[in-house]
Amino acid sequence: MRVEELDTPVLTIDLDALEENLDRYQHYFNQHGIGLRPHIKTHKTLAVARMQMDRGAIGLTCQKIGEAEVLVSGGLAVDILIPYNIIGKQKLERLCALARQTTITVAADSAYTVNGLSEAASAEGVTLGVVVEIETGQERTGTITPEQTLALAQLIDRSPGLEFRGIMGFPTPPETRPLIQETLALLDRHGLPHPMVSGGSTKYALQAHLIPELTEYRIGEYPVGGYGHLLAGRHTLEQCALRVIATVVSRPTEGRAILDAGSKTMSASTLETERGTSIGYIVEYPDAHFYGFSEEHGHVDVSACARKPEIGERVQVLPVHPCPCVNEHNEIVAVRQGRVEAIWPVYARGKIR
Amino acid sequence: MRVEELDTPVLTIDLDALEENLDRYQHYFNQHGIGLRPHIKTHKTLAVARMQMDRGAIGLTCQKIGEAEVLVSGGLAVDILIPYNIIGKQKLERLCALARQTTITVAADSAYTVNGLSEAASAEGVTLGVVVEIETGQERTGTITPEQTLALAQLIDRSPGLEFRGIMGFPTPPETRPLIQETLALLDRHGLPHPMVSGGSTKYALQAHLIPELTEYRIGEYPVGGYGHLLAGRHTLEQCALRVIATVVSRPTEGRAILDAGSKTMSASTLETERGTSIGYIVEYPDAHFYGFSEEHGHVDVSACARKPEIGERVQVLPVHPCPCVNEHNEIVAVRQGRVEAIWPVYARGKIR
Repeated sequence: MRVEELDTPVLTIDLDALEENLDRYQHYFNQHGIGLRPHIKTHKTLAVARMQMDRGAIGLTCQKIGEAEVLVSGGLAVDILIPYNIIGKQKLERLCALARQTTITVAADSAYTVNGLSEAASAEGVTLGVVVEIETGQERTGTITPEQTLALAQLIDRSPGLEFRGIMGFPTPPETRPLIQETLALLDRHGLPHPMVSGGSTKYALQAHLIPELTEYRIGEYPVGGYGHLLAGRHTLEQCALRVIATVVSRPTEGRAILDAGSKTMSASTLETERGTSIGYIVEYPDAHFYGFSEEHGHVDVSACARKPEIGERVQVLPVHPCPCVNEHNEIVAVRQGRVEAIWPVYARGKIR
Repeated sequence: MRVEELDTPVLTIDLDALEENLDRYQHYFNQHGIGLRPHIKTHKTLAVARMQMDRGAIGLTCQKIGEAEVLVSGGLAVDILIPYNIIGKQKLERLCALARQTTITVAADSAYTVNGLSEAASAEGVTLGVVVEIETGQERTGTITPEQTLALAQLIDRSPGLEFRGIMGFPTPPETRPLIQETLALLDRHGLPHPMVSGGSTKYALQAHLIPELTEYRIGEYPVGGYGHLLAGRHTLEQCALRVIATVVSRPTEGRAILDAGSKTMSASTLETERGTSIGYIVEYPDAHFYGFSEEHGHVDVSACARKPEIGERVQVLPVHPCPCVNEHNEIVAVRQGRVEAIWPVYARGKIR
């Protein structure tokens, strides 16, 4: 089947671009001796996860236990990092069940989380690896000072059922190196080995070598790019593998085109650009501005386009944030040179627990 | 099972509040002799659609063919309006298949759409009802002038396989009455009957009687409310039936609480409030400000709260936009007085075609 025969809106991935991205980043991390541990939150598919492992990834990253369960039940019982505070009876039981099947490491930034993990692991007779999440600029989770990190590492180290494995941060631009160094030095002074020092984010991935302390790195969007990566020059247009194909369903005015792709197709994520808020980049109409949406309509200003799209015409759109966009879809259509090669179920879609 | 035993994040609906909302709005429309045609895009479930029909809805509204297929295959082959420009071979075939099973009306705002509908309906030997969508302030789809509406109505009227049924607009606040009157008068002068005059939006629903020309009305969010409706006084807190139950997973600073509900749970929709951009209203902490998210983390400023939430504590969150929030979930847990009464699959989730 040709891609032109697919009904719209439809989420597609270009296999040539995908493979080139996977190779390029794997090569970079191999070259610098840093383990690549891809984050499956972006693609949520078994197919891409397998391609990542086949290319030399040291393991995978899952943000939720449900994602890890999808991997394991799909035959990918690899070394898994869940960089998240796992809290609550039901989740701890599921986590321990996973730990019986494969190597599991989780993150913690509080004694509350650590105590819960230890209690569950002891009761279930499993060992859970734990890293301390440190705050590196996201202003989200994470310990604030190296002293807090040390205290938590010591608690993990003496807690039954747990094994202290090191630290992780998100994101880890080069300027976070001093904090990482200071933290590791403090752990060293207190005799706490830290085999895992995990950095993350596609944005700073190709600068990971500037923090030689990193043993591994988590990245999600590198296989597919997206409008933000295109704007920042991290991915060329050709390297932006993930595209929504949409149809122009209305042209009410000279300047306005309406697509059959709104927030339930693109996700409600937006990106601030020089032209204002954007929902996506329209490949065939670089002068168009995809400025708004309702649930099933995409609102595009085409007044700056010399040639304007017509009703019934199809366009390719790069999402501004691939991860939630993929999560809106039940499948991704894998395309090579215009031919449909596979349809990949988004198995981990909606795995929020 | 008690609601406290559910793992988080989880989407719940309070049945008492839901039923009260359904009754209240149905009563209003009955009182004013306007047909209520609920929009299933909000809840995407068969259960609520059945409750709406049982209470006297004249039919249902679906934004996509896939939603209508879910209704019909779920035993709800009711009178369905799809207020959308249906374009393309695959969709037209599915639309005609539906029209063989139940009464279908679709919207059009261009000759392109009308010609496609007519060609498909003729070829398949079915009749499709068509209304002209008029622009009433959304700046999305819709004809701009009454003259354009007339021309399109005339085209529909003479197109084989199609039956001109009237007009629709979104939204239809009272101030759109003159445009509606002018349009209908023009249709009358040209001998085009318009049995369907369809208004829409929960925001203006209880003012529908101020446009006596309306024969029916489409509303989506009225069964569940949401943060916007709460702020505007359209729903009380008790009437806001749809809530995400989330757990506090981190308290990195005195002022910051992190929930296990980010954009993949709440949707990436935001609402501008007096306190700035909001992702949701936290019922137990009215002074908290849910200001940001990442995919699986909700970022909450709790510095204004006298008592502050602790790690492990659970909170209820009203989403800012119920429709895309529901679409993130595979099921809704129906709760009455704290007891789980049913788990409703979100059957139409992801039905973007």
